[in-house]
Amino acid sequence: MARIVMKFGGTSMAGIERIRVVAARVKHEVELGNEVAVVVSAMAGDTDRLVGFCREASSLYDPREYDVVVASGEQVTSGLLAIVLQNMGVKARSWLGWQLPIHTDSAHASARIETIDTEALIAGMAAGEVAVIPGFQGMGADGRVTTLGRGGSDTSAVAVAAAVKADRCDIYTDVDGVYTTDPRIVPRARKLAKVTYEEMLELASVGAKVLQTRSVGLAMKEQVRVQVLSSFEPPTDNVTPGTLIVGEDEIEESEMERQRITGIALDKNEAKITLTEVPDRPGAVASIFAPLADANINVDVIVQNIAHETGSTDVTFTVPGAELARAIDALTKSRDTIGYVEMKHDTKICKVSVVGVGMRSHAGVASTMFQALAGRGINIQAIATSEIKVSVLIEEDYAELAVRVLHTAYGLDAPEAIEA
Amino acid sequence: MARIVMKFGGTSMAGIERIRVVAARVKHEVELGNEVAVVVSAMAGDTDRLVGFCREASSLYDPREYDVVVASGEQVTSGLLAIVLQNMGVKARSWLGWQLPIHTDSAHASARIETIDTEALIAGMAAGEVAVIPGFQGMGADGRVTTLGRGGSDTSAVAVAAAVKADRCDIYTDVDGVYTTDPRIVPRARKLAKVTYEEMLELASVGAKVLQTRSVGLAMKEQVRVQVLSSFEPPTDNVTPGTLIVGEDEIEESEMERQRITGIALDKNEAKITLTEVPDRPGAVASIFAPLADANINVDVIVQNIAHETGSTDVTFTVPGAELARAIDALTKSRDTIGYVEMKHDTKICKVSVVGVGMRSHAGVASTMFQALAGRGINIQAIATSEIKVSVLIEEDYAELAVRVLHTAYGLDAPEAIEA
Repeated sequence: MARIVMKFGGTSMAGIERIRVVAARVKHEVELGNEVAVVVSAMAGDTDRLVGFCREASSLYDPREYDVVVASGEQVTSGLLAIVLQNMGVKARSWLGWQLPIHTDSAHASARIETIDTEALIAGMAAGEVAVIPGFQGMGADGRVTTLGRGGSDTSAVAVAAAVKADRCDIYTDVDGVYTTDPRIVPRARKLAKVTYEEMLELASVGAKVLQTRSVGLAMKEQVRVQVLSSFEPPTDNVTPGTLIVGEDEIEESEMERQRITGIALDKNEAKITLTEVPDRPGAVASIFAPLADANINVDVIVQNIAHETGSTDVTFTVPGAELARAIDALTKSRDTIGYVEMKHDTKICKVSVVGVGMRSHAGVASTMFQALAGRGINIQAIATSEIKVSVLIEEDYAELAVRVLHTAYGLDAPEAIEA
Repeated sequence: MARIVMKFGGTSMAGIERIRVVAARVKHEVELGNEVAVVVSAMAGDTDRLVGFCREASSLYDPREYDVVVASGEQVTSGLLAIVLQNMGVKARSWLGWQLPIHTDSAHASARIETIDTEALIAGMAAGEVAVIPGFQGMGADGRVTTLGRGGSDTSAVAVAAAVKADRCDIYTDVDGVYTTDPRIVPRARKLAKVTYEEMLELASVGAKVLQTRSVGLAMKEQVRVQVLSSFEPPTDNVTPGTLIVGEDEIEESEMERQRITGIALDKNEAKITLTEVPDRPGAVASIFAPLADANINVDVIVQNIAHETGSTDVTFTVPGAELARAIDALTKSRDTIGYVEMKHDTKICKVSVVGVGMRSHAGVASTMFQALAGRGINIQAIATSEIKVSVLIEEDYAELAVRVLHTAYGLDAPEAIEA
């Protein structure tokens, strides 16, 4: 007997027929003798619909009320899955975020889970009752509904798995595992059997989109064994048919040595902001990013050009495209404090990254990347690096070309293309 | 300064543009210096969509999970209205059923409100913050979400008004008040300035449909002054532009004296059942209605004809048209116990009622009704009376004619027809 947390995304929950398929899969795990908790997303499209209402209501909506609105999508699917499971003869009940509760901080619309009260949950699971938990939501210290930010249901699942000390957290998605890159862009992409938390973190944060970044970070911190697998393939006797995301200790040395690069990631949802002629003095950069941090806007790639002769400098950085309007608002209000001359922004950019723990023991990874892109005439607008990743900003129109070029350049192409 | 509870139905909440109209109206009340709580329905169509999911999931769905699913519709609109109000510069926050909480019994899907904790609510309103409360929902003693049954938002509004001791509970609907009869049938129908709780109960239960019956009963019990008014007309300086529903003590003696009849109601949703040659002995009638009560079918008009010479009698009664099939089923199974010879049924009937507290002090109300109908050759199939109401069953084809004839006979016609 094992304790399993299963998580199903919006595509798997889109309509009762699909929820029946999910329920059959849950029933399969229950019949294997496992204790099961299920974390569900809203129906595909529902969260977009709800977010759209909030934006239409006000471009500067109160995130506390936004959370009330958007958390409803997962509430609906959790109740429906409980009904369908009961209808199949499986004991089940829904546990809303405020009912367990799932305690979060009060950063509405992008809250972090702090603790989960598991007493009732574990008692229910031990009594053979499947716990159906809406992902993405929790309750703040103020007793109000919080949500974890888009894709937060993955984080909910990992947090629940950590809290109930689950043997495995199975994340069902519309892909059957983690690939070297998006197979829709590169048909010769290969499925990875195992990937480390760190690699997955970089792949997710740069847009691989299989798992929410924060969920991978949490899994790494809590040492939760996560599996990504397909919700569209029938259950199999193979307990790990997808890609396992694990600690580096579970990856064999030889695997790491062979492959410098694990995958290529693409992110089209960033927007670039440039502030011109910022005074080149201590504290200038802090005065740019403090108001963005106050507005809970994540800044990614940051490039500070060398100072002009006038004693000022241009600062370029990226923010999530969805936060661009709020970022512009925050920076406009702080203009006097920052002292920039002009604010430019550009959403027609993308970020392409190469990722791999093997990079640590191989020189020349970045050089290969720059040469491969230059060879196709792709201009690099900015570069950012970490220990296991090199990212570049390029014009959005070149996104797919760049991914294909790099996938080949690092020898990642499979012998045969996968079926579309 | 007054304390006002405002309630808006699904048509008023259907989309952000309409919610802006609602918010403008709320703002108007706030600017008059009033303390305001707003109770909202789900967007028109949304509850039907959610109920449809539950039915598709299982015809015998768990009502506890049904409540989780359907309560989400009002959660969405409460958050959205709070956002729109804030955007207009009005302080506002949503209070979900479990947050106040609104305590209900545990009759999931048709719960009754028991108490409402008002401390935080009243403190917020006193601080100038509009409280936005999703109608239709509460929390059971088991800590789970409950709903009040269809149309329950009217009841939520009246219950909130009672709990905060509101000066008035304004129910905004798609009509601008309660009329002497349906203006679509009688263009010269007049809007009533005031109507008593008892009259409204009779008008609602016989099909006037402006307010949920249970909400009127609760208003009467708690002495909440309710106003029905249009959500489509712009705010006016007249604080009571609609119809006030109040206790009899607020209706002046002279008004009651002048007007014997307050309104004419029509109900086309009844079906008539006649059982012939039922044995004329004690307990015979009980044996008819016990199986219907067991099946939760409400019986309305009941007529027992005088006994035949054979020692048997015919019994006629009405049930809601939607329950006819189940009623026939229950009575067929009980045929031996009841001992009737034949069961006839007829859905081509309607019930026309004249209602008015003035009836108490006026003789001849029923007589006027029978003469007026006879004058147009309308045959009365059955008659039922209460202290403030006389109802007749007639053939459905004569429904509108009967209403028009009675409206004129009781002197209710306005000098001019209202605009359609």
